[in-house]
Amino acid sequence: MLFTSDNWAPVHPAVMAALSSANQGSVPAYGNDDATEAATRALSEVFEREVTVAYVTTGSAANGLALACLTPPWGAVLAHEHAHVHIDECGAPEFYTGGAKVLTVPGPTGKMTPDALEAALSVYDPPQYHRVRPAVLNLTQATEWGSVYSPDEVSALSGVARRYGLKVHMDGARFAGAVASGAGSPADLTWRAGVDVLCLGGTKNGCMAAEAVIFFGDEGADQLPWRQKRAGLSWSKHRFLSVQWSAYLKDGLWLDLAGQANRMAKRAAVSLKDHPEVRLIEEPTINEVFVTMPDALADRLRAAGVRFYDWVQPGDRYDRKARRFVTSYVTEDADIDALGSVLDQNR
Amino acid sequence: MLFTSDNWAPVHPAVMAALSSANQGSVPAYGNDDATEAATRALSEVFEREVTVAYVTTGSAANGLALACLTPPWGAVLAHEHAHVHIDECGAPEFYTGGAKVLTVPGPTGKMTPDALEAALSVYDPPQYHRVRPAVLNLTQATEWGSVYSPDEVSALSGVARRYGLKVHMDGARFAGAVASGAGSPADLTWRAGVDVLCLGGTKNGCMAAEAVIFFGDEGADQLPWRQKRAGLSWSKHRFLSVQWSAYLKDGLWLDLAGQANRMAKRAAVSLKDHPEVRLIEEPTINEVFVTMPDALADRLRAAGVRFYDWVQPGDRYDRKARRFVTSYVTEDADIDALGSVLDQNR
Amino acid sequence: MLFTSDNWAPVHPAVMAALSSANQGSVPAYGNDDATEAATRALSEVFEREVTVAYVTTGSAANGLALACLTPPWGAVLAHEHAHVHIDECGAPEFYTGGAKVLTVPGPTGKMTPDALEAALSVYDPPQYHRVRPAVLNLTQATEWGSVYSPDEVSALSGVARRYGLKVHMDGARFAGAVASGAGSPADLTWRAGVDVLCLGGTKNGCMAAEAVIFFGDEGADQLPWRQKRAGLSWSKHRFLSVQWSAYLKDGLWLDLAGQANRMAKRAAVSLKDHPEVRLIEEPTINEVFVTMPDALADRLRAAGVRFYDWVQPGDRYDRKARRFVTSYVTEDADIDALGSVLDQNR
Amino acid sequence: MLFTSDNWAPVHPAVMAALSSANQGSVPAYGNDDATEAATRALSEVFEREVTVAYVTTGSAANGLALACLTPPWGAVLAHEHAHVHIDECGAPEFYTGGAKVLTVPGPTGKMTPDALEAALSVYDPPQYHRVRPAVLNLTQATEWGSVYSPDEVSALSGVARRYGLKVHMDGARFAGAVASGAGSPADLTWRAGVDVLCLGGTKNGCMAAEAVIFFGDEGADQLPWRQKRAGLSWSKHRFLSVQWSAYLKDGLWLDLAGQANRMAKRAAVSLKDHPEVRLIEEPTINEVFVTMPDALADRLRAAGVRFYDWVQPGDRYDRKARRFVTSYVTEDADIDALGSVLDQNR
Repeated sequence: MLFTSDNWAPVHPAVMAALSSANQGSVPAYGNDDATEAATRALSEVFEREVTVAYVTTGSAANGLALACLTPPWGAVLAHEHAHVHIDECGAPEFYTGGAKVLTVPGPTGKMTPDALEAALSVYDPPQYHRVRPAVLNLTQATEWGSVYSPDEVSALSGVARRYGLKVHMDGARFAGAVASGAGSPADLTWRAGVDVLCLGGTKNGCMAAEAVIFFGDEGADQLPWRQKRAGLSWSKHRFLSVQWSAYLKDGLWLDLAGQANRMAKRAAVSLKDHPEVRLIEEPTINEVFVTMPDALADRLRAAGVRFYDWVQPGDRYDRKARRFVTSYVTEDADIDALGSVLDQNR
Repeated sequence: MLFTSDNWAPVHPAVMAALSSANQGSVPAYGNDDATEAATRALSEVFEREVTVAYVTTGSAANGLALACLTPPWGAVLAHEHAHVHIDECGAPEFYTGGAKVLTVPGPTGKMTPDALEAALSVYDPPQYHRVRPAVLNLTQATEWGSVYSPDEVSALSGVARRYGLKVHMDGARFAGAVASGAGSPADLTWRAGVDVLCLGGTKNGCMAAEAVIFFGDEGADQLPWRQKRAGLSWSKHRFLSVQWSAYLKDGLWLDLAGQANRMAKRAAVSLKDHPEVRLIEEPTINEVFVTMPDALADRLRAAGVRFYDWVQPGDRYDRKARRFVTSYVTEDADIDALGSVLDQNR
Repeated sequence: MLFTSDNWAPVHPAVMAALSSANQGSVPAYGNDDATEAATRALSEVFEREVTVAYVTTGSAANGLALACLTPPWGAVLAHEHAHVHIDECGAPEFYTGGAKVLTVPGPTGKMTPDALEAALSVYDPPQYHRVRPAVLNLTQATEWGSVYSPDEVSALSGVARRYGLKVHMDGARFAGAVASGAGSPADLTWRAGVDVLCLGGTKNGCMAAEAVIFFGDEGADQLPWRQKRAGLSWSKHRFLSVQWSAYLKDGLWLDLAGQANRMAKRAAVSLKDHPEVRLIEEPTINEVFVTMPDALADRLRAAGVRFYDWVQPGDRYDRKARRFVTSYVTEDADIDALGSVLDQNR
Repeated sequence: MLFTSDNWAPVHPAVMAALSSANQGSVPAYGNDDATEAATRALSEVFEREVTVAYVTTGSAANGLALACLTPPWGAVLAHEHAHVHIDECGAPEFYTGGAKVLTVPGPTGKMTPDALEAALSVYDPPQYHRVRPAVLNLTQATEWGSVYSPDEVSALSGVARRYGLKVHMDGARFAGAVASGAGSPADLTWRAGVDVLCLGGTKNGCMAAEAVIFFGDEGADQLPWRQKRAGLSWSKHRFLSVQWSAYLKDGLWLDLAGQANRMAKRAAVSLKDHPEVRLIEEPTINEVFVTMPDALADRLRAAGVRFYDWVQPGDRYDRKARRFVTSYVTEDADIDALGSVLDQNR
């Protein structure tokens, strides 16, 4: 009964098969190959427009790279106070940008409101050089608390950002889950709603190590190859990065996998909230369920073999002692049934 | 009626005279001169122990330099949410440290409590590499809201910091005001209370451009000359930086000047709070008075020639619309009398 | 007839099989798994001592990470003037170290001599803060010109380095080739000869994307996880990085593959130097052959389907117009025969 | 008999008087004052066009700031191999630019030729992301060996730079000496010859601490206030920085002072080369004389009270053991006479 992290899951067989298939003969290095062209074409189709892509291995690298192209070192990234870029990347944005600041915007379950964003930005307006200059809005889709922005919500936020001269960056480590939840099409959730750059995650949802920095426009995109090489992020045998994408996106596999994980989370939530000592923080939209429960119950569940993480967020002004249950594309009904049994046995 | 900033004040005649006196003949460059040795001796006497000093021109440079010696790039500086290093230095700490983060601690008038600090630190304990590692506590003395920490308060905070493995840095741009307020001796307010490094300001209180990074211990101090040179902070004609200190500290001049500014602020506060539409946020301890007043009154005061700044702090969760009145060592009773008259005329 | 780069080669079947085998069930992320422990054990055996390892994807990331742990930002990396870290990483060492300098040492075919190193270091001795402080010696083994240092040569260079207080870093992108050439055992060529950190490459010689930063001692090694995470270099599904190593090292596969590439290079050299218009710059030791030839001949060879790169090195004071022929573990006798035929036809 | 460094000289009385005069009453901080406007006007007149200026304290800060506005972090600064920015600033350019590289161009006495520059640039052309991208040409005027570029020479070099897409930065720590030598007018030596940014030094030639980053065009100039503040380079009591310039430039004082220093150097050279054991490396153009002499003679001169530095340049491929004699605006005929006597006594 493993609900620790979707990073523990294996590689989907179709992705692994693609890696094997790609392993034929010698091809040019560093992305000058047909497989990379095909991957970018596949992404362009998914997003219904031409895109510029940098392929990298981790989400932190993707975010750092994207942010560095969008802010000067004296700029600021406006992010939710629990944003991955702020809390969980050991300062990668600061490293990649040459020391830009992450300024935080509050919001109870990972989402910020246009009003909260406006309040955070207005005190920096007009920009003046004694303070950093807000330069990028960072949105996580789906958020660190598993919630999802609708296209209208993204539009409203990017509208505020644009009024203050900011670019919009979306951290999409679990973007597949947001799309699979029915929130909107990939295009509706991104560039049609004002997003300039999306970091699209593949790793948590079936790839081996595949994250893509996707620029919908030109501005800043010319910096990608330089910053990527300089950070040691450019695979030499690049085809093995690219083919993961083609397999992952083919025939909507990525959405099928995310859909399965989402469904399992919904079922897990039903079991969890049915327990009298468990409180659901919010109905799950993607593959994460956040609950509160007494320590004693958590201990008993763990003793019975249920694995999950406590979810302590620095700066959590709501003072919740949350527990996080994550499903993945390999979670099966049997896992949820087993969780339900343990919960029942521990009433 | 000038209450905008103590940075607008001229250089004290004794400091200017010292600059002229030092202008005799040729002497070795870059601090290898008698004047610099004398300045360091004077600082050692004031602080009652041997100190290592880097002399620089601005407070932001001093803070950046000090913090860079105390934290690795993946470290975090814990600072009050209105700290100068966080709000008003355009990211200098991030620049100097190579991208360390400033994590904020709340507190209504510039001071943090040990409990608030503990709460901010405990979520990062034990340190783990997915998140930045808290490395330095930054305290401003006196604070950005003009309040002052007592030696016991500094000790309590540095005690918490030390338990979590942090060094303690004090931003003392207005340290003279804190000492002159009677809060404690220079030594009691710093190393005896657990402070590792003090950035002592001279500029706002009578010097031309003189800030000192003062290390009370050895750790990190060996980095100073390298980081200082590399940032272009090393004066070649260094004697003209050093002699400002000797003149400023001589016979307690620095405390006389700060005392005068403090007294004028207290008098200004009496006049201000006497006005029915003005509310004092806190009784002033140093040379700054923070009040609230309606916009219409602020307009009328300004029309009558009173100059002061609105004080909008990013992230101010108390949502005050504060106004700041700053006195300096050149503020005279006549200035306060004039302010009082204008206030009376605008009831 | 492909002699462009060993980066064009596919993944060795044994490595691909290991990736497939590892794809069973869910395991902990970020290297907390058995496969990673096994890989580190395998590396410890190969190097005959306990080692600390950071697993990354590219050689530039490995080098940047290693150098950042070994030099302060005001330090200097002493490197051959054609070193990969100086010429071919788009400034990765500067990025990772926070702006340390690469100072160059000359030498005709990629190797520096102890005398040349001494000459470069002595002008910085004693260190003084107006100049950067030499902190690391970077050696490439095998070098960018395909030459190989003997254990004695490494010892002599590291001896000079140590006398001046430097650490020793070895860029081993083609270290397998050096060992397979008979130059010495992995231990003899590294820590026994004074090397502190080796960046060992797997990618060019049969892996998919596998480079290892190997610390032989403790100093600086504690920085690895922080710097690695902060740069976005930490694989979440880490087992797929680790198992490449176990397969690659098993039963000496890595040396068999390098040996095959080396033999093919030797055969290519025989064919090349046999041509009256081709001059061998040096007898090949590993899988690279550097020659000079007239442009007209190069054109004719390319027209006949032979692919190779011109080798223009910035700062090449020898003003050679070199051409580089690279073999790899998939180069076969037939490829060399074909090259020989084309050469014969173009006399 | 002091010939160590022009940094040892005092402040010129006219500059000191200006500092005293400026010390009247309170004025706005951070350069929003009349004195700063007047200084910029004075500089605009000297350079015969509108200029944008950042006023700073040291030459390393000026150079770092300027270069950071002209190159991305993955760029390269092309500089003479003995350039101050490469050798004598402890990595300030790397720090300020976020890790750009300094690539060196040879040349016997501090000057590079268009051919040497072309050779250094052509190997990086066309730019490709595996290598850094040349972005700025750095020229020192006068050079580190006291030589001076003519306007035509500057034009020829900036012409090469521009063809490769580079901006041109001039390090003018001793620019006054170059102008006073009759090489050309300030405008002819800079923007009319293709220079984009000049770092003009005042400190070595009579100011207390005054260096100016002068942008002749707009590109990059908007970055100045942000980078300046972020580095802690912005004086709060800015008038005391500005008035140094007005006094220094007034009625050509700066050129009178440089002219005096130049003349004294010429006289020193006459005495030095008259000694049979002394060899002049080049006839002096500004206030520096570089010679060679046996160690024994150097010892005897020093024993007799003559102070000067050995001039060991890292990477000096000419293997000279030079000695540097520097005059300044306070050097008098009597000093040179005394030097001459000691030389005579040590034949």
